[in-house]
Amino acid sequence: MSLSLRKKSAVAAAKAAGMDGLLVTHLPDVRYLCGFTGSNAALALAGGRAVLFTDGRYTAQAKAEAVGTRVVIAKKPAVAAACEWLDNAGVRRCGFDPAQTTVAALEGMRKAVSAKVRRSMFQATGPLVARLREVKDVEEIATMWKAARLGCRLFDGMLSYMQPGLTEIAVAAELEHAARLAGAEAMSFETIVASGERSSLPHGRATQAKLPRRGFVTLDFGVVVDGYASDMTRTVHMGKALPDEREVYDAVLEAQEAAVAKVAPGVTAGEVDEAARSVLRKARLDRYFRHSTGHGVGLEIHEGPRLAAKQTQALEQGMVVTIEPGVYMPGRFGVRIEDMVLVTATGGEVLTPSVKAWIEL
Amino acid sequence: MSLSLRKKSAVAAAKAAGMDGLLVTHLPDVRYLCGFTGSNAALALAGGRAVLFTDGRYTAQAKAEAVGTRVVIAKKPAVAAACEWLDNAGVRRCGFDPAQTTVAALEGMRKAVSAKVRRSMFQATGPLVARLREVKDVEEIATMWKAARLGCRLFDGMLSYMQPGLTEIAVAAELEHAARLAGAEAMSFETIVASGERSSLPHGRATQAKLPRRGFVTLDFGVVVDGYASDMTRTVHMGKALPDEREVYDAVLEAQEAAVAKVAPGVTAGEVDEAARSVLRKARLDRYFRHSTGHGVGLEIHEGPRLAAKQTQALEQGMVVTIEPGVYMPGRFGVRIEDMVLVTATGGEVLTPSVKAWIEL
Repeated sequence: MSLSLRKKSAVAAAKAAGMDGLLVTHLPDVRYLCGFTGSNAALALAGGRAVLFTDGRYTAQAKAEAVGTRVVIAKKPAVAAACEWLDNAGVRRCGFDPAQTTVAALEGMRKAVSAKVRRSMFQATGPLVARLREVKDVEEIATMWKAARLGCRLFDGMLSYMQPGLTEIAVAAELEHAARLAGAEAMSFETIVASGERSSLPHGRATQAKLPRRGFVTLDFGVVVDGYASDMTRTVHMGKALPDEREVYDAVLEAQEAAVAKVAPGVTAGEVDEAARSVLRKARLDRYFRHSTGHGVGLEIHEGPRLAAKQTQALEQGMVVTIEPGVYMPGRFGVRIEDMVLVTATGGEVLTPSVKAWIEL
Repeated sequence: MSLSLRKKSAVAAAKAAGMDGLLVTHLPDVRYLCGFTGSNAALALAGGRAVLFTDGRYTAQAKAEAVGTRVVIAKKPAVAAACEWLDNAGVRRCGFDPAQTTVAALEGMRKAVSAKVRRSMFQATGPLVARLREVKDVEEIATMWKAARLGCRLFDGMLSYMQPGLTEIAVAAELEHAARLAGAEAMSFETIVASGERSSLPHGRATQAKLPRRGFVTLDFGVVVDGYASDMTRTVHMGKALPDEREVYDAVLEAQEAAVAKVAPGVTAGEVDEAARSVLRKARLDRYFRHSTGHGVGLEIHEGPRLAAKQTQALEQGMVVTIEPGVYMPGRFGVRIEDMVLVTATGGEVLTPSVKAWIEL
């Protein structure tokens, strides 16, 4: 989808919500709609017009990136300038996303418009742009493939690097260094390396703990490529496993694959979650699976839809979601396996094809 | 300052603002007041009581970290649980920070309390906790020293690494790898490596551009140690400089040192900014200095006070601020030099003593 189509879709969504204008201040939303990646921006949309407000640091960058959008370098705060413009453009009901607008920002928005429209001008419309962003277009999917594939190559490289006695931090450092050199702009989030008993922590940041001679190591990481985040998790075993370690791994893998197999347009997020959860229930492990099954991913690491119990939102072609069930046995060990999955016309396509079979290093 | 003293100060600040309770949801504020570092938290303060609300992922971690604060593992969203508790505790005017609370969150807060107090319960009080955090206590200063010194060691290491032909990304990768291995939890922000003509970009993220045989390289980076961010910038020259490159460098260094020398309790943020700006004005370079002189730093990379033109806030003993004037000649080159400076009883103490004299590699 071209940027101009994205802007049109946003205006149409605002119109459907009864608005004659839309103010966009959440930076990933601004980037999505007009291409600008700077750290200070407000995008005003009204009718067929779109104007990006930013400051003097970004004069050249804004013009280069926000092709097809008028750029205004504002002396006053970008949001205030955007609100004034909307007011002057005759907008009387301007939508904004209440989940991305602080109470203080809303007050500033109201102060920036004329007294007679102050109380009625800005209307919370819900996450209109976030909702558009859930369904990726062809260009986005190509970029996400790139990010996901880079993640897989990095994971494969770590298999020959990891060995007992290395610290979790050394593993994270090696992974992140390789990511940088391979073209990642950043990591998607703080790299998780959780080894031995620490694998039982769902969010075990890398520490000075050493990889064990015998025990699990969970790697959960992602890379940002052209603004888009990847996200994947693999759990490998150092040395020979105990029978119940293997049993838990097999159950998590079965749950993960059941949820991946469930992905298709029209299937609800809750049904995908239940596909994973029911496998673990049969294995009497569901009480150790304490988080949701997955989430959308894109310009942000956590986007809609939310793949959790009872979520009624239906998956749509073009969504990219994570599928990441896990089992965490407190004080013992944990296993999580995560893929990024693209919702296709007929099912789901895994974007992170790194091996998920049992690996003993 | 102990955590209990921090909580008492927050309650006193709320009381002075006419509140009988305080709801804290901004995660760095929560961490500051009770020590908890998890990603889901709401802290409720009323009278002498403080209760931290989080979820089941953090049962063990919250108890270990939030020593002296009661921990409640909530089934419902942490914020909603905190609001219910405040209501039941008899709080009738509960302060919150409007700059850290979204419009949607405020609506959720109101829905969580009983109908009769819904409209009056939550009162925007301004950034009470952020204001406390501006003045660092002894423990915080010790940690920030550690982070700042690590930054300096890393910069010194880069001097022997950088050479013409290396990509900016390779430099960033080496720096970040060394940071990780030396104990940094994370970088404070995306590492800036801006070489040659790119040094004229105030925020030049590392790219595939190669370090030149002749030209500037600006390194702007920081490391996070025990939650606290460091921040420093040095600009070095590869090869022999042109006369005006050296002139600009000397002017920026003089401006930076003038601003550092100005730092003292009671001096306003605007006066510090003007100390740097007036040096560049005399050198007829002020129009190329397009950003503010600095900012507070701590648990977040950008905190108060803001060191910009006309800011009337007075510096206080215990504040830690950056001093980072720069000159950016579009299409040619740029120079920025940045230290972290602690406001002491009588002046300012530089926490980042890496060499600032002219370096030619």
